[in-house]
Amino acid sequence: MSLREDADKIIAHAIHQVLPDQAVKQALEEKEFTSGNIYVVATGKAAWQMAKAAQELLGSQIKSGVVVTKYAHVKGEIPRITCYEAGHPVPDKNSFLGTQAALELVSDLKAEDTVLFLLSGGGSALFEKPLIPEEELADITRQLLASGADIVEMNTIRKRLSGVKGGKFARLCEPAQVYSIVLSDILGDPLDMIASGPAYPDSSTCEAAAAIAEKYQLRLSSQAAACLKEETPKTLHNVETRITGSVRNLCQAAAQQCEALGYETVLLTDQLSCEAREAGSFLAAIAKSHAGCQKRMAFLAGGETVVHLTGHGMGGRNQELALAAAPGIAGLTGTAVFSVGSDGTDGPTDAAGGYCDDKTQAVLQAKNIDIYEVLKENDAYHALQQCGGLIMTGATGTNVNDVAVLLLQGSC
Amino acid sequence: MSLREDADKIIAHAIHQVLPDQAVKQALEEKEFTSGNIYVVATGKAAWQMAKAAQELLGSQIKSGVVVTKYAHVKGEIPRITCYEAGHPVPDKNSFLGTQAALELVSDLKAEDTVLFLLSGGGSALFEKPLIPEEELADITRQLLASGADIVEMNTIRKRLSGVKGGKFARLCEPAQVYSIVLSDILGDPLDMIASGPAYPDSSTCEAAAAIAEKYQLRLSSQAAACLKEETPKTLHNVETRITGSVRNLCQAAAQQCEALGYETVLLTDQLSCEAREAGSFLAAIAKSHAGCQKRMAFLAGGETVVHLTGHGMGGRNQELALAAAPGIAGLTGTAVFSVGSDGTDGPTDAAGGYCDDKTQAVLQAKNIDIYEVLKENDAYHALQQCGGLIMTGATGTNVNDVAVLLLQGSC
Repeated sequence: MSLREDADKIIAHAIHQVLPDQAVKQALEEKEFTSGNIYVVATGKAAWQMAKAAQELLGSQIKSGVVVTKYAHVKGEIPRITCYEAGHPVPDKNSFLGTQAALELVSDLKAEDTVLFLLSGGGSALFEKPLIPEEELADITRQLLASGADIVEMNTIRKRLSGVKGGKFARLCEPAQVYSIVLSDILGDPLDMIASGPAYPDSSTCEAAAAIAEKYQLRLSSQAAACLKEETPKTLHNVETRITGSVRNLCQAAAQQCEALGYETVLLTDQLSCEAREAGSFLAAIAKSHAGCQKRMAFLAGGETVVHLTGHGMGGRNQELALAAAPGIAGLTGTAVFSVGSDGTDGPTDAAGGYCDDKTQAVLQAKNIDIYEVLKENDAYHALQQCGGLIMTGATGTNVNDVAVLLLQGSC
Repeated sequence: MSLREDADKIIAHAIHQVLPDQAVKQALEEKEFTSGNIYVVATGKAAWQMAKAAQELLGSQIKSGVVVTKYAHVKGEIPRITCYEAGHPVPDKNSFLGTQAALELVSDLKAEDTVLFLLSGGGSALFEKPLIPEEELADITRQLLASGADIVEMNTIRKRLSGVKGGKFARLCEPAQVYSIVLSDILGDPLDMIASGPAYPDSSTCEAAAAIAEKYQLRLSSQAAACLKEETPKTLHNVETRITGSVRNLCQAAAQQCEALGYETVLLTDQLSCEAREAGSFLAAIAKSHAGCQKRMAFLAGGETVVHLTGHGMGGRNQELALAAAPGIAGLTGTAVFSVGSDGTDGPTDAAGGYCDDKTQAVLQAKNIDIYEVLKENDAYHALQQCGGLIMTGATGTNVNDVAVLLLQGSC
């Protein structure tokens, strides 16, 4: 089997395992529900797919449900589930309308009932019930942004101005149980950050909120000031959480497929956040020290690298990572580095990522393409296009960051 | 044992194993000499230490010898060995004088004799016999530099203008055997590059040399033009080479000490060459995914990272690497990242490198020191000074690049 065929198999398997429907199905297969009714509340950009998957698996066990997702993200009707499309990244009336419908659904439930809460990225805007007038909420957000407040400070304030964030949604579901399935798009899966944690205990305090208001001299109505004094839930006894479609799953699935293809596999990290091209150089350095080894080896690094633009070309972080590895692995027979974004769109391109192997640099040199010049122009897309190095998957419907892989076939 | 104590043990052991005398002793212990005489020729910045170590081990087995090293690098007399100090990085009369003495030493030897050739970084300038007048050699070098010729092109020309480079020294030793012990300061140990390979077969050709002269329109005397037509040795049957004090040894020795301290150890690479701070970020990402694991783990990455200066502070690549890891490992109990240069001087500082652990960021924050600001100013030295993070070894007398280590004590 060629390296590229191996790469394509690894990519296909890894992405398949983190598709919203696949992720939901895995999480539901492990779950035994109590005898009561099941109600679905799904929010975020993948809410429709997640609810659809739940419906396909649980069928009429679901009594009813609400989906609140982004405009143009509802792909059809789901039996017994009402779908709302709303504003993202800025919440609008429909966000509040859909959220209100969800809150009505979960009020007056019994202890034996379960709220199946399906959460994905984007939920912070889509799932919201402001406790103060919309205009004031927008004004306070502007004040915080202008003052240079960090994300933790922003959330400490916003959780108190919301009727659902910071664990409050789960509290409103009581006495029913909440089974929360989370598709994580943030490295390290900080559950109080994903959609501002509607079903996760909040660790921030009213004292901290008061200190932030003081520090930035926030202008607050008496209503908003009162909200800041209301403590958020510190413990939630009715919630069980399962993080399923995360970059960790993406990496684990990729590693699984590497092993299945006979590679001795080292999963280095699923929280990579450095400069894309430097990560490529690091993987190439690993290749140099392991090339010529007797066994097939794979090194994986997942996460979300960054690109600091210096040029005006076309590309994305995954394409840059792969291309930057090409000079280092040039001539190391049986060596490849590839990187792919799980959403299928890397940067503003139609490619999901890039693939380079020991021959890439020579192929590009023969076409008078200098990799360092290409990287300076951030033009990885066009260079990879010239050597068959683009990875095309199409939009996948999920977004759990990226995975980069170094494959070494060794002398086998 | 504290993490810092572990770090200090690992550093001490690793550097000790690559000191010139230690490296020479290891290489000599594995060698059985034939019955003839042994002649020492040592050149490079570590030539004196290497010759001294050989003399201590072999004693009167050494018939005579020549050392050609940099000014102020001869530390005393060595029995039966004549020491020359000469110009570096630009060769001078003393370079040629010392080299000539070495050539006289190895002429008229017998097949059972051995030339113990001790090579270290800097040998390219120190060990030289130009085949054309000095002035013309300097002029051709200037022409090549001005034309933008790369290092491979430069060497292809220079090897032909030299009486000792490109394998020619080993040929002059015939019929005697050459046992070459190389202290490598270049990643990947390219033996034809270290001191331009006096005892290593040359792979460049006269055709390539002619093409380079044509490409850059070099102005050459008829004498120089004739030199370019003389082929360099393609095979050498009388040479045995041992690379001993290299970054590979440095990393292996560090890994060995990690294992001895109970860490499950992964040696990722000994050819790291990416941006220092990004390597630190990469190691921190590995830490994040492995923290809380049950076992003690160590990840090692050796090589020579680079720093692109953006500020006017004080520091070095090892200090930047360690400091850049600090935010990522903050709060990960029992985690440390450190990096050290084997020469004991990191950048223009008196520190050998830097050490950071899970508490470093908090310590610096309490002193109002922002790590991102420090890195922007390239001022790692002063920040590390504030948190006990400087690694001080003093000048070690060797230079085989750097090693960076991530230690995870896990929950043990």
